Amino acid sequence: MKTLSQRAMTMPSSPIRKLVPFADLARAAGKKVYHLNIGQPDIHTPDTFFQPIKNMDMPVVEYGPSAGLMSLREKFAAYYRKNRIDVTAEDILITTGGSEAIIFTLMVLMDAGDEVIIPEPFYTNYNGFAVQAGVKVVPIASRIEDGFQLPPIASIREKITPHTRAIMICNPNNPTGYVYSRAEMEALRDICLEKDLFLLTDEVYREFVYDGAEHVSAMHFPEIADRVVMIDSVSKRYSACGARIGMIVSKNRAFMDAALKFGMARLCPPTIEQIASEAAVDTPDSYFEEVNREYKLRRDTMVSLLRAMPGVVCPNPRGAFYLVVGLPVKDAGHFAQWLLTDFDVDGETVMVAPADGFYATPGLGQNEVRIAYVLNTEDIRKAMHIIAEALKVYPGRTN
Amino acid sequence: MKTLSQRAMTMPSSPIRKLVPFADLARAAGKKVYHLNIGQPDIHTPDTFFQPIKNMDMPVVEYGPSAGLMSLREKFAAYYRKNRIDVTAEDILITTGGSEAIIFTLMVLMDAGDEVIIPEPFYTNYNGFAVQAGVKVVPIASRIEDGFQLPPIASIREKITPHTRAIMICNPNNPTGYVYSRAEMEALRDICLEKDLFLLTDEVYREFVYDGAEHVSAMHFPEIADRVVMIDSVSKRYSACGARIGMIVSKNRAFMDAALKFGMARLCPPTIEQIASEAAVDTPDSYFEEVNREYKLRRDTMVSLLRAMPGVVCPNPRGAFYLVVGLPVKDAGHFAQWLLTDFDVDGETVMVAPADGFYATPGLGQNEVRIAYVLNTEDIRKAMHIIAEALKVYPGRTN
Repeated sequence: MKTLSQRAMTMPSSPIRKLVPFADLARAAGKKVYHLNIGQPDIHTPDTFFQPIKNMDMPVVEYGPSAGLMSLREKFAAYYRKNRIDVTAEDILITTGGSEAIIFTLMVLMDAGDEVIIPEPFYTNYNGFAVQAGVKVVPIASRIEDGFQLPPIASIREKITPHTRAIMICNPNNPTGYVYSRAEMEALRDICLEKDLFLLTDEVYREFVYDGAEHVSAMHFPEIADRVVMIDSVSKRYSACGARIGMIVSKNRAFMDAALKFGMARLCPPTIEQIASEAAVDTPDSYFEEVNREYKLRRDTMVSLLRAMPGVVCPNPRGAFYLVVGLPVKDAGHFAQWLLTDFDVDGETVMVAPADGFYATPGLGQNEVRIAYVLNTEDIRKAMHIIAEALKVYPGRTN
Repeated sequence: MKTLSQRAMTMPSSPIRKLVPFADLARAAGKKVYHLNIGQPDIHTPDTFFQPIKNMDMPVVEYGPSAGLMSLREKFAAYYRKNRIDVTAEDILITTGGSEAIIFTLMVLMDAGDEVIIPEPFYTNYNGFAVQAGVKVVPIASRIEDGFQLPPIASIREKITPHTRAIMICNPNNPTGYVYSRAEMEALRDICLEKDLFLLTDEVYREFVYDGAEHVSAMHFPEIADRVVMIDSVSKRYSACGARIGMIVSKNRAFMDAALKFGMARLCPPTIEQIASEAAVDTPDSYFEEVNREYKLRRDTMVSLLRAMPGVVCPNPRGAFYLVVGLPVKDAGHFAQWLLTDFDVDGETVMVAPADGFYATPGLGQNEVRIAYVLNTEDIRKAMHIIAEALKVYPGRTN
């Protein structure tokens, strides 16, 4: 029997997946598991999202346009203009989740063997999309000691080759929560202009910025408008991860025309969830204010409890709902597994995501975990208590 | 500025797309256009589909499992067993439409430069998916004179090279409506066994078979269970094209495991439309009986009216809801455009899909169009009258 493709063989698994059987075992053993390992918020999807589908009166669930419903694209365009991103519906292509937006973007801009530079740690699924597109991810390491700020431009410059097509960032960042400063965004703008690169910017966490931090979008710089592609999604913004409605936003007409051809091949994004997403754009600002207040409270709670643990290194990022935390352990993957298999406090334990899976460079992030603050503060307190107690007795502790 | 990828440059446009501006012009000029050019049925989506979403009480629209909701996979497995396809939920991966199912399948089985043999004419988007996967489509021509039956196995055999990985069919066929016979399916089974090839079978029109024809699925042959991948979708079955719920079905465990890794990268298919699709599986048989009665009536109406037109060659296929028809014209693409720009009967005209776009071999299908019987018989009669009148006066007529 013939084997599968080389592409299938090199397609990565989710780094969290290795832990799933151990979480299943923990639950089977009667333990309660606090899930801090996933980017699935517990925040309620706003009512606005459900209204049109509850009242749906549609005789046929038809194919929509390949670029997405025009009314939805117009609604998003107005939303972006409110965020000082000067676009029209023509600059927006609706995709099936941010995932499809990334795949289309890589495929439209790059051929097999082309390279995209990405600060690491980065969202692990970028690896899977790169394998599908045959694209090589070239990581540049950001460091926990620096709060995961943008690595020096010099370190980017030295990675640029004739095969480099783009720099890609996630801002606010998954997994680090870091929000890029204006100076950093300007530096990225300048190097992309100088080296003739595209700037791909995954901004699905745009709404989640704390401490009055300014979110500087790559779309805020008209001088690079033709080389910026923004990836976005309703998943986090409206806590509607399962809706699979994302978008590509770009002023580069040739790029958008080509992306639409990929869109036409797969016909259209889901119709019903586009209709729901369109209504969700009318979610009142008070919803976001409340959500951000909640996330900030959770982050503050988590950061202060983590920093109180001896040997733990915890930055205080100003966006998204993740922390990458350094632990006083040699192998955070083993620690995460041990939490599930060998530890509990009163029958409760915690699942976290080992951070090495978010790095492309082997050996980096070995003692780090990503923690998502997707539980309420009460549960966060309990979960942090479990980690604190675990670190006291974990046999693989380094100091 | 750097150019786009080679992949983007070679990504095909929909063959119908060229005609769209002319349809817009026709409408702008006040003409009514009967759309026989698309696979969007007018058949009502069954009530069962809408019930759970109207009653939805879901606090958070969460990510579902990457393989799809287990309850949906189990429901589909039971549906297949009813259709004598012996599978369990483990053999089913839910995808975002049949489109994603095809992309995943090509990517899991083939690397750049690998070849898949497909009888032509075939669903045009196979081309787009092949470009995305870097796969070469090798067409074997079926002929209108033979009612588009499977080309002789000898013609398949001579196309097999060391790069050939699979044969792919669509059964019942889009665009021809042809339903492969048991003997043809057995011949495909045998050549795949002999030459160690996968058999990819797109069966999204399974429900639409007329005249008592038997639908023989590639999944009906246990002796090739490990080399068959079935593509399916709720789009046509429940007239829910916009739902974007499809599936990959295979007993090949290694293949399914690899396909799941592609599924994990994009997280999950749309949650709400999975829930609706699950309910749709309970649609009573009477719905399908009524729909099939209606389609058969339309086909009979259309075939008899087309065959009454001098010079028109019209097979009488037993499945799906398409006909590929030979017209007494030199360039069916020009005829289709002319219908929109230069012709009407009492202010009404027709849009059809030129069939050359469904062939990969240049020069084939030049005088053929695909007609979808997605309108009621009253409209079909009017549309056929318009085509009959048009052929009488069309300046590019050949005989």
